[in-house]
Amino acid sequence: MNRKMIGKLLGFLLLLECLFLLPPALISAVDGEQVALKAIFSTMVLSAGVGMALWLGCRNAERSFYAREGFLIVSLGWILLSAVGALPFWLSKEIPHYVDALFEVISGFTTTGASILTNVEAMSRGLLFWRSFTHWLGGMGILVFLLAVVPMGKGGYSVHLLRAESPGPSVSKLVPRMRQTAAILYLIYIALTVICVVFLLMGGMSLFDSLCTAFGTAGTGGFGVKNDSMAGYSPYLQTVCTVFMALFGVNFSLYFMLLLGRFKQAFLNEELGVYLGIMFGSIAIITTNILPHFGGHFRKALHEAAFAVSSIMTTTGFATADFDQWPQLSRSILVVLMVVGACAGSTGGGIKCARLLLLGKSLTARIRQILHPRSVNLIRVDGARVSEETIQGVNTYMAAYCAIGVVSFLILAMDNLSLETNLTAVLACLNNIGPGLDMVGPTSNYAHFSDLSKIVLMLDMLLGRLEIFPLLIMLSPRAWRRAS
Amino acid sequence: MNRKMIGKLLGFLLLLECLFLLPPALISAVDGEQVALKAIFSTMVLSAGVGMALWLGCRNAERSFYAREGFLIVSLGWILLSAVGALPFWLSKEIPHYVDALFEVISGFTTTGASILTNVEAMSRGLLFWRSFTHWLGGMGILVFLLAVVPMGKGGYSVHLLRAESPGPSVSKLVPRMRQTAAILYLIYIALTVICVVFLLMGGMSLFDSLCTAFGTAGTGGFGVKNDSMAGYSPYLQTVCTVFMALFGVNFSLYFMLLLGRFKQAFLNEELGVYLGIMFGSIAIITTNILPHFGGHFRKALHEAAFAVSSIMTTTGFATADFDQWPQLSRSILVVLMVVGACAGSTGGGIKCARLLLLGKSLTARIRQILHPRSVNLIRVDGARVSEETIQGVNTYMAAYCAIGVVSFLILAMDNLSLETNLTAVLACLNNIGPGLDMVGPTSNYAHFSDLSKIVLMLDMLLGRLEIFPLLIMLSPRAWRRAS
Repeated sequence: MNRKMIGKLLGFLLLLECLFLLPPALISAVDGEQVALKAIFSTMVLSAGVGMALWLGCRNAERSFYAREGFLIVSLGWILLSAVGALPFWLSKEIPHYVDALFEVISGFTTTGASILTNVEAMSRGLLFWRSFTHWLGGMGILVFLLAVVPMGKGGYSVHLLRAESPGPSVSKLVPRMRQTAAILYLIYIALTVICVVFLLMGGMSLFDSLCTAFGTAGTGGFGVKNDSMAGYSPYLQTVCTVFMALFGVNFSLYFMLLLGRFKQAFLNEELGVYLGIMFGSIAIITTNILPHFGGHFRKALHEAAFAVSSIMTTTGFATADFDQWPQLSRSILVVLMVVGACAGSTGGGIKCARLLLLGKSLTARIRQILHPRSVNLIRVDGARVSEETIQGVNTYMAAYCAIGVVSFLILAMDNLSLETNLTAVLACLNNIGPGLDMVGPTSNYAHFSDLSKIVLMLDMLLGRLEIFPLLIMLSPRAWRRAS
Repeated sequence: MNRKMIGKLLGFLLLLECLFLLPPALISAVDGEQVALKAIFSTMVLSAGVGMALWLGCRNAERSFYAREGFLIVSLGWILLSAVGALPFWLSKEIPHYVDALFEVISGFTTTGASILTNVEAMSRGLLFWRSFTHWLGGMGILVFLLAVVPMGKGGYSVHLLRAESPGPSVSKLVPRMRQTAAILYLIYIALTVICVVFLLMGGMSLFDSLCTAFGTAGTGGFGVKNDSMAGYSPYLQTVCTVFMALFGVNFSLYFMLLLGRFKQAFLNEELGVYLGIMFGSIAIITTNILPHFGGHFRKALHEAAFAVSSIMTTTGFATADFDQWPQLSRSILVVLMVVGACAGSTGGGIKCARLLLLGKSLTARIRQILHPRSVNLIRVDGARVSEETIQGVNTYMAAYCAIGVVSFLILAMDNLSLETNLTAVLACLNNIGPGLDMVGPTSNYAHFSDLSKIVLMLDMLLGRLEIFPLLIMLSPRAWRRAS
């Protein structure tokens, strides 16, 4: 294992984090938030110092870099960034308990949006900005950012990093060079975020709120700056969010295809079909189901249903209505959508439509196989054959996903809250959504849980965002052997 | 497709059912239950008539018989047996609504034990016996019985029938000839059932109760003859059930090994290790967790925990205590055990320990693969290599299982009962357990659901017992094409 290379890249990441803390520091400085400013500044000094030391100490790293190193850097990097990113909240005493601060920041970076805060509006603006900014950074991936902006010479590592951090069953290279792929992804991401901010500003939202809301939307995170999430904003602003959440749940490579003028290829994408099919189907059923709840007011019901579906399916987690109070069918559909998730290669979480598509195709192939044992049944998506390895990968992913869900659910049960609370809390964290039902419903938060449960949920958020294997590999003793 | 062969075997099954209805008819005759006797007798005449007609009409069937025919006969056979088996309840008006009668009988044959009856003790003894007897018949499989007792000449069909009806990821031939395998399985099954009856009689249970309870235990079904299930019986009788439920959850081929004196092979079986490990682990945790609930009385807590774990994990569903009232950790463990299930090749349902073992091994193989991409990672169970096809089969099974669970859960949600009720009702039926939590908890029943929900749950029971693919294939239009 190439420990020096791991150290060097972790150093880079800490230097980047120091840079990322600059905008919140500026906001606190302008607004005269002394305590917050001091906390942020101390964290910047610490991360710059440690980052520089790591980088200098590991400068002369060898080039050898394999999948294992990629997985280790991604998992260690995310944990380190979160551990440091939690410090401003803790040092400023705005979140007095370190475990809570860590929960909040991991929830931010993993774009979950689950919060332990009972009064968001009491926070300083600098730290509120940092909280939302972590969503934006975590959405497209921090190592993807590193790849895109820092020239690090040749070496095979870019593909391993991108593969370990990107969501979905397989990584699509947009262009032959990985570094350019990363840069293109970030440019699309920035452009879409800017457009979202402009639309929000046009609706009369303040610049600060617009930026924070856009970060939460773009990263499909869901941290809001108001205690009632999005409920207090105008229907226009809510609709802007509905549309942009859905847009950020689409595979970004499709936007690249659109830019290249390959419209047919983009619109005939099979995963997009599954994604939109499930989305529109769910909106239609929920609208019908909640119609009596809104006194037969069809446009109101459609508006609320569309927002909730877009928010949950893209795993954002903004709320306009307390969907915990809706009829059981609507609640149940939302629980299922939590697990479905968005498209691969988007900023959304969940199992991803691409995996469900592959599972569905494996199933029909299996039935054909039983009926005609001697026939050859290849699985194709978008006309291209899917490798056995990819399908096997999806299957083991699902098995690991279920196992982690079950273990988490049992540990949470020790707190003796309701089964529905525990189940939806695990689903909401493992799929990076944020709110669940019952005691973790949209009008509530995660403050009820014990520290042990919070730690389990933090691990679930990281496992969900990094798609399990990087963390499992980090925990495997084999991975750390120097010899192999 | 060989339609005549399907017709002939279905005819055989109906003739068998007529025979199976004889014991309940005798009991009703002895007890002077006129209405029940008339209903049973009419059903016997009907099934004998139709069975004979089918058999005569399809006598000259060709020999060609493939996996497809096996799957079709198994699913059509189970549906036909249930449709006819429900008639005595309906004709006697003891269950006035035919959908309810069908629910009860499907629940019987699939060894689920979910009931729509609110007062079991009001039933006639003949029909109560029939209800429990369906558990025993369904436990080891009705086509396995047919294979074991009816000589049908040569042909490759026995392996296809056994494969389609037997639970677990692969069928183990005990001896080279399938017919003998079926006969050995039934002999072990009968012997264990008789021993169970003897132990129950020794505890002072009446012969009628002993037989019915033994049927429910052997088939891991769970229909009781008392309104309070097993709670009214003595601790000795409850302990007998605890032990025998656990024994019937073990792969029957292990008993065959014991008979042959291959003790080491039987006791070192990996699936048995997983099964007993999960069972004893769960009993230990639940005992500790419910200790305060029983006022610190350790033996009482251990007794109740052991009964509940053995009952739920083997998917029997007998109850001695209202575990719905236990702390959340114990309730959650029981929900997870519902899904885990018993061993492959036993009478128990659920996903089965063998499948979980394979999934776990695939997962570790995958991690090794990532760490050492060029290494070869074969999966072995009990020293033998597991084929890629078996692993692929387990994976598609899990995918189909989840999909069916989700769809059922959403349809049940339309009744607007609680999420916990719907979730555990689907799990309890799909895994052939019986009681769930909340409104389908051990002191309640399935009468609350709408007809649509009941039909969905019936399908879940059949899908769970027949392990999904036979029914999926029956529903696939391809399977019915004459040409292919």
